Amino acid sequence: MKVYLDNNATTIVDPYVFDEMEPFFVQKYGNPNSLHLFASETHQPLKEAMEKIYAGIHAPKEDSVVITSCATESNNWILKSIYFDAILPGKKNHIIISEVEHPSIIATARFLEGIGCKVTYLPINHEGIVEAHTVRDFITDKTALVSIMWANNETGAIFPVQEIGEICAEKGVLFHTDAVQAIGKVPVDVQSFNVDYLTMSAHKFHGPKGVGALYIKKGRELKPLLHGGSQMGGYRSGTLNVPGIIGMGKAMELASDALDFEMHDIRELRDDFEEELLKIPDTFVVTPREKRTPNTILISFRGIEGESMLWDLNRSAIAASTGSACASEDLESNPVMEAIGADADLAHTAIRFSLSRYTTKEELDYTLAVVKEAVDRLRGISSSYAYAPEGHESGLDAGH
Amino acid sequence: MKVYLDNNATTIVDPYVFDEMEPFFVQKYGNPNSLHLFASETHQPLKEAMEKIYAGIHAPKEDSVVITSCATESNNWILKSIYFDAILPGKKNHIIISEVEHPSIIATARFLEGIGCKVTYLPINHEGIVEAHTVRDFITDKTALVSIMWANNETGAIFPVQEIGEICAEKGVLFHTDAVQAIGKVPVDVQSFNVDYLTMSAHKFHGPKGVGALYIKKGRELKPLLHGGSQMGGYRSGTLNVPGIIGMGKAMELASDALDFEMHDIRELRDDFEEELLKIPDTFVVTPREKRTPNTILISFRGIEGESMLWDLNRSAIAASTGSACASEDLESNPVMEAIGADADLAHTAIRFSLSRYTTKEELDYTLAVVKEAVDRLRGISSSYAYAPEGHESGLDAGH
Repeated sequence: MKVYLDNNATTIVDPYVFDEMEPFFVQKYGNPNSLHLFASETHQPLKEAMEKIYAGIHAPKEDSVVITSCATESNNWILKSIYFDAILPGKKNHIIISEVEHPSIIATARFLEGIGCKVTYLPINHEGIVEAHTVRDFITDKTALVSIMWANNETGAIFPVQEIGEICAEKGVLFHTDAVQAIGKVPVDVQSFNVDYLTMSAHKFHGPKGVGALYIKKGRELKPLLHGGSQMGGYRSGTLNVPGIIGMGKAMELASDALDFEMHDIRELRDDFEEELLKIPDTFVVTPREKRTPNTILISFRGIEGESMLWDLNRSAIAASTGSACASEDLESNPVMEAIGADADLAHTAIRFSLSRYTTKEELDYTLAVVKEAVDRLRGISSSYAYAPEGHESGLDAGH
Repeated sequence: MKVYLDNNATTIVDPYVFDEMEPFFVQKYGNPNSLHLFASETHQPLKEAMEKIYAGIHAPKEDSVVITSCATESNNWILKSIYFDAILPGKKNHIIISEVEHPSIIATARFLEGIGCKVTYLPINHEGIVEAHTVRDFITDKTALVSIMWANNETGAIFPVQEIGEICAEKGVLFHTDAVQAIGKVPVDVQSFNVDYLTMSAHKFHGPKGVGALYIKKGRELKPLLHGGSQMGGYRSGTLNVPGIIGMGKAMELASDALDFEMHDIRELRDDFEEELLKIPDTFVVTPREKRTPNTILISFRGIEGESMLWDLNRSAIAASTGSACASEDLESNPVMEAIGADADLAHTAIRFSLSRYTTKEELDYTLAVVKEAVDRLRGISSSYAYAPEGHESGLDAGH
């Protein structure tokens, strides 16, 4: 049995998505911007795909959904354009993000710090969640943008986007949210929340890699990150990735259709699996289950290096993660575990299981058995675990 | 018969390319940065694809080929990073491009002009070619970058990249070339020419849309345009577009294999077709055939609006262009025709036929017949052509 439990890193392309994309490689290959039949045969499918993306986030027609190549591009775009629009001209000098944003926000913010932008990195609380009031505390009249993710990629923690949006609206500050880990897992509605900009990534909801989007509310103009031939209404130039856009549209439609299944059936699978995992002694989960996306578990097994556990799982053909795939080639401690103040030992022990609508009970039963065996084996050879008495206080409980 | 003669806008994905990409959507969908079997099964195919791209431009191993989402991203990246590296800190203040670069260079240069960068737009001569000595004339000690395309998208004119590279090396100025229209049509060798940076786009040589690259010579560090998870050695973050990269690799291999065919067989087809077109009275071609890529014809039919000709061709299921697809939704005059000083009438009459290795003699014979018929019909109803006496001097010959 091969088990894929790394859906927060990327997802299988849904076969229905691939079926819709397939004709646009070898058969209908025209450039949509050309003036001939090879172009025009792409127009209706592209229009329908865009409508599905608008519908998936409840965006009204007058707003813009601009296709990009990935969430990393969308996130770089919003931060760097705020720099060019407001910070370089001296109108503003400050942005607010959380300390557990995706690397594409954190690294971009650090880059902007190097060229004169002040950045506030909001802390998370002991549950791994940014508290909305902290946003209010740090907004000044020089704050150009608040960028807080909808749901965290490591823990699945859902952040108080609605309250943060309200605070930003009240203070007149632009608000961006990276919703990459929310779409397809919880309802995402840009109209009922005050969201000025929102980042999406197709490959996180069973669409293809290489295509994402940035939602832009009407009236929130933004300089392009990619200048050129004025595709996408001038917001994002570059030949349209026709199969990618069509795949993203279909994936969004399927994600919307499957949302209830994800929120109930997958949640139940996840909860049952998690309860069994927590029966293993000395295991810890940071964010309460009801405050998380329905597919994610970040769990620590005291005394077991995350990479060692991954190794044992992988030997049994089970895919999981120690954290963001965007950072996982470096064997660093988990950034969320560090941010909540877990002790150094525990920060290296976190394993993320992220399910999808393709995950089955049989796969989770098999995984549970492998995990239990791995825990026994690895704790048996662990120097750090050997020194910890049974029932000792965890780094978390001790409030480090 | 459907005839596709708009290969400078985009190309059919080669079925062999698609075959190599296909398994990486639904079957081998892992994120290469993860630490498990779903990731590792992508590593060898990705390595082989990258090796094919290196081989296609003769890049030595110590140099970098960084995958991007398209040529527009590569072109924005080089110009904006030069801004961040050299212009914003005040070390340099000037870049040199040609007046007929792709919109992704021109529009980015204009954006940079708005934030303190001086830009020189080098003219083209009456053959549509940038003369190398003009580069030397404009380089100052404040010049950060020269960016001149290898071959022009409109005319197919091949620019003196070797001489320009030598001038840049001699003057100590960085040199970038947009080789999008050169790869697969003429030999592109970054080692025998002095090229510091080079832009590629897969969909111009029978690869997929949504993937391109920037070549970076060793020692020519460049800040990322997309910060984040440090994929691509930190040069370009974002989850790797696995099928896109694998498709680009295969496309590059096939383009290299087919280069002789393109340079001889396709050139011969193009030349024969062009000679027949030029037998139609009052037709003009700007760049001499031997100074062009083997697949491109930009031809003017005096008295006939380019869009009218496209319409007639399209009715007969023939796809051509009035110029860059990146600008073709606007009914503007052809920028190259304007740049060489063609009179206003002639500047609107240019039609671009761009062939590929899939183009056949039968398709060109059919196209020729349709063109002749269209010329008769359209000149019959043309007010401008009716006033022009037979054998009048063209705007070009008159040296406008």
